[in-house]
Amino acid sequence: MQPKHPSESRTIMTDMVLPSETNPLNNLFGGELLARMDRAASIAARRHSRRITVTASVNHVAFNQSVPVGSVVTVDAAVSRAFRTSMEVYIDVWMEDRFSGERSKANEAIYTFVAVDEMGRPTEVPPLAPETGLEKERYDGALRRKQLSLVLAGKMKPDEATELKALFT
Amino acid sequence: MQPKHPSESRTIMTDMVLPSETNPLNNLFGGELLARMDRAASIAARRHSRRITVTASVNHVAFNQSVPVGSVVTVDAAVSRAFRTSMEVYIDVWMEDRFSGERSKANEAIYTFVAVDEMGRPTEVPPLAPETGLEKERYDGALRRKQLSLVLAGKMKPDEATELKALFT
Amino acid sequence: MQPKHPSESRTIMTDMVLPSETNPLNNLFGGELLARMDRAASIAARRHSRRITVTASVNHVAFNQSVPVGSVVTVDAAVSRAFRTSMEVYIDVWMEDRFSGERSKANEAIYTFVAVDEMGRPTEVPPLAPETGLEKERYDGALRRKQLSLVLAGKMKPDEATELKALFT
Amino acid sequence: MQPKHPSESRTIMTDMVLPSETNPLNNLFGGELLARMDRAASIAARRHSRRITVTASVNHVAFNQSVPVGSVVTVDAAVSRAFRTSMEVYIDVWMEDRFSGERSKANEAIYTFVAVDEMGRPTEVPPLAPETGLEKERYDGALRRKQLSLVLAGKMKPDEATELKALFT
Amino acid sequence: MQPKHPSESRTIMTDMVLPSETNPLNNLFGGELLARMDRAASIAARRHSRRITVTASVNHVAFNQSVPVGSVVTVDAAVSRAFRTSMEVYIDVWMEDRFSGERSKANEAIYTFVAVDEMGRPTEVPPLAPETGLEKERYDGALRRKQLSLVLAGKMKPDEATELKALFT
Amino acid sequence: MQPKHPSESRTIMTDMVLPSETNPLNNLFGGELLARMDRAASIAARRHSRRITVTASVNHVAFNQSVPVGSVVTVDAAVSRAFRTSMEVYIDVWMEDRFSGERSKANEAIYTFVAVDEMGRPTEVPPLAPETGLEKERYDGALRRKQLSLVLAGKMKPDEATELKALFT
Repeated sequence: MQPKHPSESRTIMTDMVLPSETNPLNNLFGGELLARMDRAASIAARRHSRRITVTASVNHVAFNQSVPVGSVVTVDAAVSRAFRTSMEVYIDVWMEDRFSGERSKANEAIYTFVAVDEMGRPTEVPPLAPETGLEKERYDGALRRKQLSLVLAGKMKPDEATELKALFT
Repeated sequence: MQPKHPSESRTIMTDMVLPSETNPLNNLFGGELLARMDRAASIAARRHSRRITVTASVNHVAFNQSVPVGSVVTVDAAVSRAFRTSMEVYIDVWMEDRFSGERSKANEAIYTFVAVDEMGRPTEVPPLAPETGLEKERYDGALRRKQLSLVLAGKMKPDEATELKALFT
Repeated sequence: MQPKHPSESRTIMTDMVLPSETNPLNNLFGGELLARMDRAASIAARRHSRRITVTASVNHVAFNQSVPVGSVVTVDAAVSRAFRTSMEVYIDVWMEDRFSGERSKANEAIYTFVAVDEMGRPTEVPPLAPETGLEKERYDGALRRKQLSLVLAGKMKPDEATELKALFT
Repeated sequence: MQPKHPSESRTIMTDMVLPSETNPLNNLFGGELLARMDRAASIAARRHSRRITVTASVNHVAFNQSVPVGSVVTVDAAVSRAFRTSMEVYIDVWMEDRFSGERSKANEAIYTFVAVDEMGRPTEVPPLAPETGLEKERYDGALRRKQLSLVLAGKMKPDEATELKALFT
Repeated sequence: MQPKHPSESRTIMTDMVLPSETNPLNNLFGGELLARMDRAASIAARRHSRRITVTASVNHVAFNQSVPVGSVVTVDAAVSRAFRTSMEVYIDVWMEDRFSGERSKANEAIYTFVAVDEMGRPTEVPPLAPETGLEKERYDGALRRKQLSLVLAGKMKPDEATELKALFT
Repeated sequence: MQPKHPSESRTIMTDMVLPSETNPLNNLFGGELLARMDRAASIAARRHSRRITVTASVNHVAFNQSVPVGSVVTVDAAVSRAFRTSMEVYIDVWMEDRFSGERSKANEAIYTFVAVDEMGRPTEVPPLAPETGLEKERYDGALRRKQLSLVLAGKMKPDEATELKALFT
């Protein structure tokens, strides 16, 4: 299959934070943001694979900044690496102050999707060809994250996770 | 502060999978489940702390099993360890076949919440006193997960993550 | 068919009161609570019968206590008596103060469900075997409530409603 | 206070049954209809009282007819009797076949609302002056229903429920 | 086909403005009202045609009055003219002050719907026979609006839009 | 005030068509799309003005293409002209076939927003400086559309609508 560039799967979802999506401090619920990121990332995975895509895993996500009601939130997702039937999608979330318009990074998250056929069976996807420096950096990190995920799931021995092991030794 | 038991924060959220929450294969969207788990886990964190709680992070979550429309899904959350102002919440998700009633594990996930006051400032929470074998096992794992989270966020040197390092060396 | 215990159908649905579900006094809308109770009760009826279940009737429901936004609401439902193809489900609703964590009874309600096949035709359900004192009391009351329902619907003469008549004479 | 006619509070809410509101047989969920009726009835109660109104109770509701997805449902509510601070609202629900346009009665329900001030304290409402034969019949029945409700809640002795007692003796 | 009167398609949708439907000034979002009007108008078009109906166009809509949270909004729609396979629906929107009950016109809008068969192919609809003065006035205006719509879409030369041209010359 | 470019207000909202948003032919409801376009366009207007913005009017919108469930819909909005306190926003809607990924134009729409202060009073906005050929063309058309809107609302005599009159004479 013909490799694709991250720009071909890039998906931008801009929307407001509505009062019905907020916690008692009037900030966006973490769960709401997780759901928005999942929708945007699954569109990115579909754009890369042209297949039905299902969420396989969510990597570690940190909520460092609270997002107040009325903010404009931009979820910006693109495939960061493709494996045989799965794709890692890297998601940047930006928030914009209602009045000053100042943008700041609200979040980063990494989801993995599997491409499936109409029967739900995994099916092959094109490889990814990163172009920019940031795309290459994320492409390289993806292998380390995949190993971590396999180790945590007990499907790979820590010893075999060479990329990861290098971090600690 | 008086320690609390996991049973004091345990939160059960049973609900059906509605057609509006499903993907093209008629299975529950990953993002929907992430949002449900966040709501249940934040109630567990609030029950432990009696404070407003905000999502701080989501640990690695794997979606191993698809959940078809019409299934009954039970999200079962309890605090697994308390740190000074944060709490780890361990979530088990069960699904139940519509007709046979057979239950199977659909998912496990771990979220972290911070307790805050009305101004959003972190505030202390009671320690956790695990009772059962499973509760103790999850309590012990929580420290390792916290180190992993700090390492991934660049806030702890891999060298100092003693619990974690032991895994790889 | 093998009798089942109420504990086998017991269904717990814990969730928060969100701002989008409240009236101008910032309390949970009655209609919202009616819908939540219907979902929980229909899962209980399905767990007892292992069939599709449809709401047949709602008994008298009184809203004695208002439930403020941000409260945690626990809907606790279990089958209280089974007739040939229908089941009475008894629902207790508890609310929990956001900060003190104090629980109080917010509501009681009784719904009736019919088990149906894929064509919507009524189909038999197992009998119920109550165990605790409260379960037995609710089991006994169910017959009186069924008579009242038949009298109100004009399907039974007041004279034949022996259980009910005893109340007034 | 000046009496008002039922026509002054009459509220019509016409809407479709959407796929997200249906059970596994593709019929409207009972709980969804209960919530729609609550919204329409509370508008009727507000139109009669010009106050904030909160749901006090739901009378016995029977779901005799299933309402398929795509149907047009008309909820038609009007105050049927006013007491000092509460109002009984009678609700007729009609469904309309998608193609033939044939209308049939899907449901009848009776809700009671209390008028309150901004602090949630009960406040007086105008009396109701029924005009048509049906309005008068519902007005008369309301007293019997109020007694039944008080007896069921243990707030009136069956012996004092003269209207009701007459039914059984 | 037998002509029908506007009263046969008239559709009234009364509902409250909920907090989740409001902008930062606590008024109903324009987009929410556009969606409500579309649902009511499509029911009116279906009642006239007894067919599946799909939105073909929305005429110029002006939002002259803001509608605060808690208001009761009544959308009142009826077919104003039928062409071969399409219908113009005229919509009046009323709002009612929460306390005084005073009604005022919040909006007028005109939508056009096409009747289609199960394959989505346009299909004929009955002609409209207006009765009241207002119905006749709207019926006459519909032809002018249709010409304007065709001119704006580049499907009619301004020169042939005789009804419209008369306005400017 | 410093003029702004259309690119500074450009807003992209990508999302899927969910089953709960579709009509009986399984295509996106017109009203749903109107609401999505309103949200995207209001963000564009806010980005241009850095003010609260409220929908003032919707220009003629034609729905030429049906959008099936599961499609990816991209709403792409940018300010096309600014007047003293109001902004015209031009919206292009693209749909993407689920499998081939082929993009096609689903819709064009034009909304007008007014910038207001916290009291809801109109407030001045920066002028717009179009850059590309398409932006200039839309900028020029905006004046003609404003005149048409004023004529239709009876606030300008057809005779004074010089831009518009030229079309017909």
